[in-house]
Amino acid sequence: MKAVRVHGYGEDPSLDDLPEPGIHSPHDIVVRIGGAGVCRTDLHILEGQWREKSGVRLPYVLGHENAGAVVEVGSAVTTIAPGDSVILHPLATCGACGACRAGDDVHCTSSYFPGINADGGMAEYLRTSFRSAVRLDPELAPADVAALADAGLTAYHAARKAATHLHPHNTVAVIGAGGLGHIGVQALRALTAAEIVVVDRSEAALALAAELGADATVRADGEEAAAVRERTGGRGAEAVLDFVGEGTAVASGIAMLARAGSYYVIGYGGSIDIPTIDVISNEINFVGNLVGSYGDLVELMALAARGLVRLHTNLYPFSDYAKAFADLDAGTLTGRAVLVPSL
Amino acid sequence: MKAVRVHGYGEDPSLDDLPEPGIHSPHDIVVRIGGAGVCRTDLHILEGQWREKSGVRLPYVLGHENAGAVVEVGSAVTTIAPGDSVILHPLATCGACGACRAGDDVHCTSSYFPGINADGGMAEYLRTSFRSAVRLDPELAPADVAALADAGLTAYHAARKAATHLHPHNTVAVIGAGGLGHIGVQALRALTAAEIVVVDRSEAALALAAELGADATVRADGEEAAAVRERTGGRGAEAVLDFVGEGTAVASGIAMLARAGSYYVIGYGGSIDIPTIDVISNEINFVGNLVGSYGDLVELMALAARGLVRLHTNLYPFSDYAKAFADLDAGTLTGRAVLVPSL
Amino acid sequence: MKAVRVHGYGEDPSLDDLPEPGIHSPHDIVVRIGGAGVCRTDLHILEGQWREKSGVRLPYVLGHENAGAVVEVGSAVTTIAPGDSVILHPLATCGACGACRAGDDVHCTSSYFPGINADGGMAEYLRTSFRSAVRLDPELAPADVAALADAGLTAYHAARKAATHLHPHNTVAVIGAGGLGHIGVQALRALTAAEIVVVDRSEAALALAAELGADATVRADGEEAAAVRERTGGRGAEAVLDFVGEGTAVASGIAMLARAGSYYVIGYGGSIDIPTIDVISNEINFVGNLVGSYGDLVELMALAARGLVRLHTNLYPFSDYAKAFADLDAGTLTGRAVLVPSL
Amino acid sequence: MKAVRVHGYGEDPSLDDLPEPGIHSPHDIVVRIGGAGVCRTDLHILEGQWREKSGVRLPYVLGHENAGAVVEVGSAVTTIAPGDSVILHPLATCGACGACRAGDDVHCTSSYFPGINADGGMAEYLRTSFRSAVRLDPELAPADVAALADAGLTAYHAARKAATHLHPHNTVAVIGAGGLGHIGVQALRALTAAEIVVVDRSEAALALAAELGADATVRADGEEAAAVRERTGGRGAEAVLDFVGEGTAVASGIAMLARAGSYYVIGYGGSIDIPTIDVISNEINFVGNLVGSYGDLVELMALAARGLVRLHTNLYPFSDYAKAFADLDAGTLTGRAVLVPSL
Repeated sequence: MKAVRVHGYGEDPSLDDLPEPGIHSPHDIVVRIGGAGVCRTDLHILEGQWREKSGVRLPYVLGHENAGAVVEVGSAVTTIAPGDSVILHPLATCGACGACRAGDDVHCTSSYFPGINADGGMAEYLRTSFRSAVRLDPELAPADVAALADAGLTAYHAARKAATHLHPHNTVAVIGAGGLGHIGVQALRALTAAEIVVVDRSEAALALAAELGADATVRADGEEAAAVRERTGGRGAEAVLDFVGEGTAVASGIAMLARAGSYYVIGYGGSIDIPTIDVISNEINFVGNLVGSYGDLVELMALAARGLVRLHTNLYPFSDYAKAFADLDAGTLTGRAVLVPSL
Repeated sequence: MKAVRVHGYGEDPSLDDLPEPGIHSPHDIVVRIGGAGVCRTDLHILEGQWREKSGVRLPYVLGHENAGAVVEVGSAVTTIAPGDSVILHPLATCGACGACRAGDDVHCTSSYFPGINADGGMAEYLRTSFRSAVRLDPELAPADVAALADAGLTAYHAARKAATHLHPHNTVAVIGAGGLGHIGVQALRALTAAEIVVVDRSEAALALAAELGADATVRADGEEAAAVRERTGGRGAEAVLDFVGEGTAVASGIAMLARAGSYYVIGYGGSIDIPTIDVISNEINFVGNLVGSYGDLVELMALAARGLVRLHTNLYPFSDYAKAFADLDAGTLTGRAVLVPSL
Repeated sequence: MKAVRVHGYGEDPSLDDLPEPGIHSPHDIVVRIGGAGVCRTDLHILEGQWREKSGVRLPYVLGHENAGAVVEVGSAVTTIAPGDSVILHPLATCGACGACRAGDDVHCTSSYFPGINADGGMAEYLRTSFRSAVRLDPELAPADVAALADAGLTAYHAARKAATHLHPHNTVAVIGAGGLGHIGVQALRALTAAEIVVVDRSEAALALAAELGADATVRADGEEAAAVRERTGGRGAEAVLDFVGEGTAVASGIAMLARAGSYYVIGYGGSIDIPTIDVISNEINFVGNLVGSYGDLVELMALAARGLVRLHTNLYPFSDYAKAFADLDAGTLTGRAVLVPSL
Repeated sequence: MKAVRVHGYGEDPSLDDLPEPGIHSPHDIVVRIGGAGVCRTDLHILEGQWREKSGVRLPYVLGHENAGAVVEVGSAVTTIAPGDSVILHPLATCGACGACRAGDDVHCTSSYFPGINADGGMAEYLRTSFRSAVRLDPELAPADVAALADAGLTAYHAARKAATHLHPHNTVAVIGAGGLGHIGVQALRALTAAEIVVVDRSEAALALAAELGADATVRADGEEAAAVRERTGGRGAEAVLDFVGEGTAVASGIAMLARAGSYYVIGYGGSIDIPTIDVISNEINFVGNLVGSYGDLVELMALAARGLVRLHTNLYPFSDYAKAFADLDAGTLTGRAVLVPSL
């Protein structure tokens, strides 16, 4: 089969011919890929940023945002069958540890991550665990939702946590309405009746956010915290979802937080630097967010099936994989790039 | 001032001339009524059903769904001022008991209830506690929201409780889309992304529910539980909000409940009769619902200000109070009757 | 191997010679039984009460409260190994359905129940799913904890739910301090600082409850609801855990409930019969309780390992199984009967 | 009356003769002080550290941990009466803002703080709001509990938040078992069955912690994070309560946190400095903690009345106020210093 593989860091990946993966253990499934999202993390992998963190042995196949059709299942798999159309949770989890048992499978003590530390889905076929497969509503085409499997799922996860304490008279500020953030806005709109204020540097991003349900938009011009305070009668936002996590976003985000408010850390790159007295005197919280759980992905697909979360995608045939990477890198894409083997 | 007073049970009320109420204690406020909702409970009061329960001394003024403008405040009132446009929570609560302190003021151990056991708001002026007043958004006219103060608030309260455990892949069934139920549907639509299925005997009520955001409607024809089960793949609804609470509604509502689901009792008149083994073997819950708290009313008004909850009202001048009662009794009203002193 | 089997309803079971069960599917484990609890449900099975509900084909092996040592594991089992000392959750669950994934495995859509609808643990060896096995702390002997696997787990589950809303100034009433109830008292004592009031007809049961941590005991003499109200300054108990669920217990339990309180239905046999207006006007809740989840069993074993939950057990050699059943039936036991194959 | 007043920063306070405070507004009460705790914050006030933050006008009376007997009440006070024995919540809150209404009165938008920005309780009489008064169980003497009003309440508040997500198989680490920490250990012991591990530099503090219910103690010798990890099988603690908040405590506390764990910031002086990627990759949370709410104080007094939280106090007559301050400053006290006007 054809697969996009990394052979060395700092090099372009290549489109290789490989044997199909096949079933290796009782919980495995093999999926014919219908779409594989191309993500900024793929660029970082190629640059070598994940070399030590993932410890993956080269060459290996990229692709951690995958959807398609099941073609084969292992001997212990009874709930997924060949022919099922599925989106794949990015982690292949064990199902037996305390975290998996409690629905918190992202903290599985024995998982692997296809596309990061094992062969991924930029290929005609992918092997993963049956536990990763969420059956798709007939309305949803794998290529259209693939990019929700990781980026979208992370945004949904944070929005869902925040929604549990957001009420109609509250305000939630979203910092950054790009790839993750614009999913976050849609998820918040579906999950909460709080007022949503979106902060971004880009007018185009703010216009999209307004279209997707934001109640107000604020240009990130250095005065954004003051603008959020003004809009909330001085109170600040009960929740801030920070999809940027670097540069001045963190300090500015903290400055727009209400007393007893919670700051959701989603984007990364920068750092939190705050005197403990400031954490205490306003009684604020910082909440870390990783990718969502399998259960979160089930919920996100329920929203997608009803049209409550939509993703703008650009489909590329496999032979154009290099162009997809280049377009992402050049920042010329609106929405997500998705590789489709069958095109 | 003019006021609609009950002089005897089984008799029509009369429009009397009374002195204005004035301030009696440090926490009192006096409100010039902009609108007073006419509610089925008012008919029950006139029939004498509340005679013993309320223990009110006749004659007294009806009206427990009130909104208007503050005209006078007591010596200990600092947060509400003459001129403020307000909707009034139906209970006048103490603010000092454990329930009031915890935001659960409906269970105040020392409250009174204007229109039920004290003079109410079908009058030019009403005296109540400053603690009942929620300041209105400038967009909201008192007469348009008055009827949300009790009926709407009860529906919101139940919807809010249910929303805490409803997720996008769940289903909530609403039994009865009438006066309370159609507010319940709007509140659920604002608060949760779960699928909303509305059950009613009336096609008109179902059509309204669909317009207000229900994902599906089911005619209550004796097969409604089977219909909900079929729609949910046999699972049943994770929550049932029963706005009827009598006749076959309760048994039918229980029959459409999923394992580990919760049944919200809102309407009343009938009874729950269920073997404990059935409660246990499906691990289901029954959740009682009274009118919402002050905090719930603040939230409901935030929804109303953004147009997320709307009430259809019929305004009557005070001189037509008897017609308003008669129209309600005859069942010829669409939406709620509201008395407006200034018309 | 030796096993206690049911051959016909209304008949005594017999001690039969059977082949060892062996591994049949990739998730199976085989456990050498260290102790199998004898439960009132076993008597009900012999009487034929479960004939239709379980649909089990006779003859089959009794025993649904099991602990012992793993001797063999299926091909897909990686987290449990031969030699592990384990207690077994009573249900063998699928691990793949939504309920299992969310930690709510008791509502698994594809489970079986050894000792109820499949061969159980009153045998030298038992086959079940690896998903049922909780590894035991070295301090805990299988025969000493076996009877916590079902009865104790049910009590713990209800106590844990109630503890989430019980605070130090609240009161929880426990109705029935027998087999389940005395575990419930210990679980409450470990999980909450609320005042615990135990209600029972038996002075011996009340004395045991006081020893296990009850703050007060009340004789169930028809005036128990009044006694609980008096003790709580008229307020009533914020939670009632009803381990009886029949006779006058239910009505009496409801009568001792505080406004906005919750009634935990655990025992069964009787029924709840209550007008919806009473549910609403006090805003009370009824909460169904089934056996606890796998996660609950992990927690219960953590308590047992630290001596916070103790069970009084009477060990019987396998050859005396008939005496164990007879002693239970005669009501002459203090604590639970446990069959031990190795004695 | 006699009162301990600050006349200038950097100076010793003096024992002055003042008129009794009297009632100024309808919600006021006057309390005859039975005990006023001396707190490290009092030393910081004298040093001038709070000069700008409090903005108090000198001279003023110190004392923010107060208990005693009510002697006079304002015209709008109906729930507290002269003769009531009370402990006083440190904040005098408005009762009307959204935070007060929701039980979150610490975030009241219109409060004052006797002893910080208004005359406090190191005096024969104190005026505050009736809303601050918690009636004491007859078993509790004001002087014995006064020091729980602020320090103890802060510790209880953090323990209570943490207890909501701590289960019997979890571990909570407490950093610092001094004045606040030793109350925190008792509160955790009452509220949760999780394993409690206490970390401190002082062997005496660790010995006290063990006596008060800690399951394990760890010397803070630079290797404490490793020790906690080892004890938890590498997992780390699901919650860390940091009563130190400065020096190496923060970094060490973060290092002992489990994945998805929460770090409770209580002590202050240092800062949190952490790359956002570390917050995300372990999905950890930081939770700010201020003093507890009025409701928390009610609960803490319920624990104190049952002997579940005890405070070691040293009583000083008013004439020895200077010695009390000096002993605290010298670090020679075991337990808290309390001034008692009547001694």
